[in-house]
Amino acid sequence: MPIGVGVIGAGVVGGGVIQTLLTHRHVIKTRSGVDLALAHVAELDPARLAELGLTGVTVSNDAARLIQDPNVQIVCELIGGLEPARTFILDALKAGKHVVTANKMLLAHHAPELCKAAIDNRAGLHYEASVAGGIPIIRSIREGLAADRIKAIFGILNGTCNYILSRMTEDGHEFEQALSQATALGFAETPPDLDIAGHDTAHKCQILTSLCFTTEVDYDALYVEGITKITHADVAYAHDMGYAIKLLAIIQDREDGIEARVHPTLVPHWHQLAAVRNEFNAVYVESDVADATLYYGRGAGRFPTASAVLADAIDAARGMGAAPAPPFVYAKRRPVLDIGAVVSRYYLRLTTLDKPGVLGKVCTILGNYGVSIASFIQQEVRGDKPVPVVLMTHETRECDLRKALVEIDQLDFIREPTHVIRVLQE
Amino acid sequence: MPIGVGVIGAGVVGGGVIQTLLTHRHVIKTRSGVDLALAHVAELDPARLAELGLTGVTVSNDAARLIQDPNVQIVCELIGGLEPARTFILDALKAGKHVVTANKMLLAHHAPELCKAAIDNRAGLHYEASVAGGIPIIRSIREGLAADRIKAIFGILNGTCNYILSRMTEDGHEFEQALSQATALGFAETPPDLDIAGHDTAHKCQILTSLCFTTEVDYDALYVEGITKITHADVAYAHDMGYAIKLLAIIQDREDGIEARVHPTLVPHWHQLAAVRNEFNAVYVESDVADATLYYGRGAGRFPTASAVLADAIDAARGMGAAPAPPFVYAKRRPVLDIGAVVSRYYLRLTTLDKPGVLGKVCTILGNYGVSIASFIQQEVRGDKPVPVVLMTHETRECDLRKALVEIDQLDFIREPTHVIRVLQE
Repeated sequence: MPIGVGVIGAGVVGGGVIQTLLTHRHVIKTRSGVDLALAHVAELDPARLAELGLTGVTVSNDAARLIQDPNVQIVCELIGGLEPARTFILDALKAGKHVVTANKMLLAHHAPELCKAAIDNRAGLHYEASVAGGIPIIRSIREGLAADRIKAIFGILNGTCNYILSRMTEDGHEFEQALSQATALGFAETPPDLDIAGHDTAHKCQILTSLCFTTEVDYDALYVEGITKITHADVAYAHDMGYAIKLLAIIQDREDGIEARVHPTLVPHWHQLAAVRNEFNAVYVESDVADATLYYGRGAGRFPTASAVLADAIDAARGMGAAPAPPFVYAKRRPVLDIGAVVSRYYLRLTTLDKPGVLGKVCTILGNYGVSIASFIQQEVRGDKPVPVVLMTHETRECDLRKALVEIDQLDFIREPTHVIRVLQE
Repeated sequence: MPIGVGVIGAGVVGGGVIQTLLTHRHVIKTRSGVDLALAHVAELDPARLAELGLTGVTVSNDAARLIQDPNVQIVCELIGGLEPARTFILDALKAGKHVVTANKMLLAHHAPELCKAAIDNRAGLHYEASVAGGIPIIRSIREGLAADRIKAIFGILNGTCNYILSRMTEDGHEFEQALSQATALGFAETPPDLDIAGHDTAHKCQILTSLCFTTEVDYDALYVEGITKITHADVAYAHDMGYAIKLLAIIQDREDGIEARVHPTLVPHWHQLAAVRNEFNAVYVESDVADATLYYGRGAGRFPTASAVLADAIDAARGMGAAPAPPFVYAKRRPVLDIGAVVSRYYLRLTTLDKPGVLGKVCTILGNYGVSIASFIQQEVRGDKPVPVVLMTHETRECDLRKALVEIDQLDFIREPTHVIRVLQE
């Protein structure tokens, strides 16, 4: 008997899922032994439905009807956003349907509620597609590294940001120009705020943190900083110092809690993550038994995301009958550490008038807070304009650095707030 | 109720599994919900057992007793080799026990027999650890890419060979010197023949081919060439031409069959696989829905391999009660193409006396067989000694090239058989 799949939302990802279900039914059946049949599509936009030209499939503009359709055993929620996606998923779980979702925003904010509903109703809730698109990272962490204690994750999880930073690095573009390119190529969503402000990456960071450390994680406890303040000068200085700038999700196990943060990061050129270019994603995992592993691929897009959605649907179909594994395990609650508690090396770009004693004053203030300098770059002076001075610090506790910067930015020869970028610590 | 695990063979990998089971029982239980308990260890060497200092665990020198032990539900076969490993696994399956193995040689030669025994006895046969150690590549292909048609796989699957080639590339060493280093560091097994002759990689290639293309694959149908003939000169020429030399398993779907081959390969520097250094492994997968994905990590070693064995044991424990998925699906039989049918670009290193007209004659013969030259490097002449001439061909069918080389190597100014290295085609 075929297993009926219902798809809510026939947009970019939903359309890819529908198309692949139709073309790959035989491949799926041969490889996995599961016969998945598209049973029902719910979509509000009649034009999208017409484009798909479906025959022999129930089509409606009513997700509630799809959820209650007895021919649907697996519900794919692919509309994104908080509501009505949350209600649809809860209703489907209550109806005993297995749910597959790509909705990172919803999970980042409501995973415990959805998880409880899944367990209460003995229904599966699968979310491989919510993090890093076509890369099977959820499975790899949950099953491939099931015996490991996860120590750290460093992830490039947003293709738009990585594309923009690649263009700035390789083509010498400024941020705005690179963003326009990403938009023109369809990588950046309109408006691109979720991407470039770091929130899309942070949603995924929340999911991975919860999964790795078996704890509830308040999304608001994450430190989130986007890439909008990165200049081509930063990229160029970093390059000369041996680093690429990447927007990373950084998750680390610490004695007194968990680090979970998203921000631009200087990644040394020798690191595998530095070589991840353009719209690709990659997740670097450090665990205590398997050691370092890295997973690379397309983190977004119609078909890579559809691949993950369908892998989950196959998993749900395979496991039917048995009690599904809980989507998340919430064991001991562990706190997310404040960004001030982070210890890192820092790249500082000061904008200063070139006067005698500038560097001395800056270094004195840094020294007062225990921040020591590893290296610095100062361009040659031309006239009376403010010049950039770039400092690289030794390891420093962020709260100390911040106090120092408050004083430094008040100095009269400092003409702009000092730009801070953290350096990847391993 | 805890699930009892029996470990046959307490060597490098077995010892790692035993140690991790003891230290990580709580982690495993929290993360996966499965309580795995070490129930029985069978090992012939009393010194190894003494070293582990086990208490509260049945210990014997008799695998047959372990297999029949009612406290053992999952049998880990970690002795390697064909016999008695094959008999142990078959007996365990017949006893209805789930089996976990890291034994690539056995699977490469006897997978269909083992697969049938697993299905007939409704027992699981898990082999994540047999390919690429700590990298969850079997799971990723089977489950993460379950909806995808696999188009190609390029894998660096032997850490010893990759370490040797890294030393030759980075330190300018010749093969023998790099091999000694690998042996001294414990990477190379003694004797290292399985590694450097390519057979270890080929065993893994056989497993991946069968898994990806749902077909039985005769191990002997694979083309296998090791790295023993690679010289530092080859590595240096390749580098100057923009390539790294890697021992690759190459698996590709072709209209008339499957390519499955193992040989040194010129990988362009821009490719992710070129950056895989030292003893690390990586598997690059091209599939039709997810597109390119890459998996990187430690392909061998006590703990990385133990991580994979335990992930499988957890999987086996989770699935207990339900019918386990078949280890391999054998659908339509597909032939492995002869190496002569491969189309590739080729790096040719000729050893020739420098006489007028040499290149002309060589090119004429190549041209007679339809082989055209893309570029060449000839060193300046010093005296009367044979000099290397390096040619890079355009795409050529290998059987044509081979015919040309038979003629070329008979020319009186050619002083050694021409050395051929294939170039990665995407």
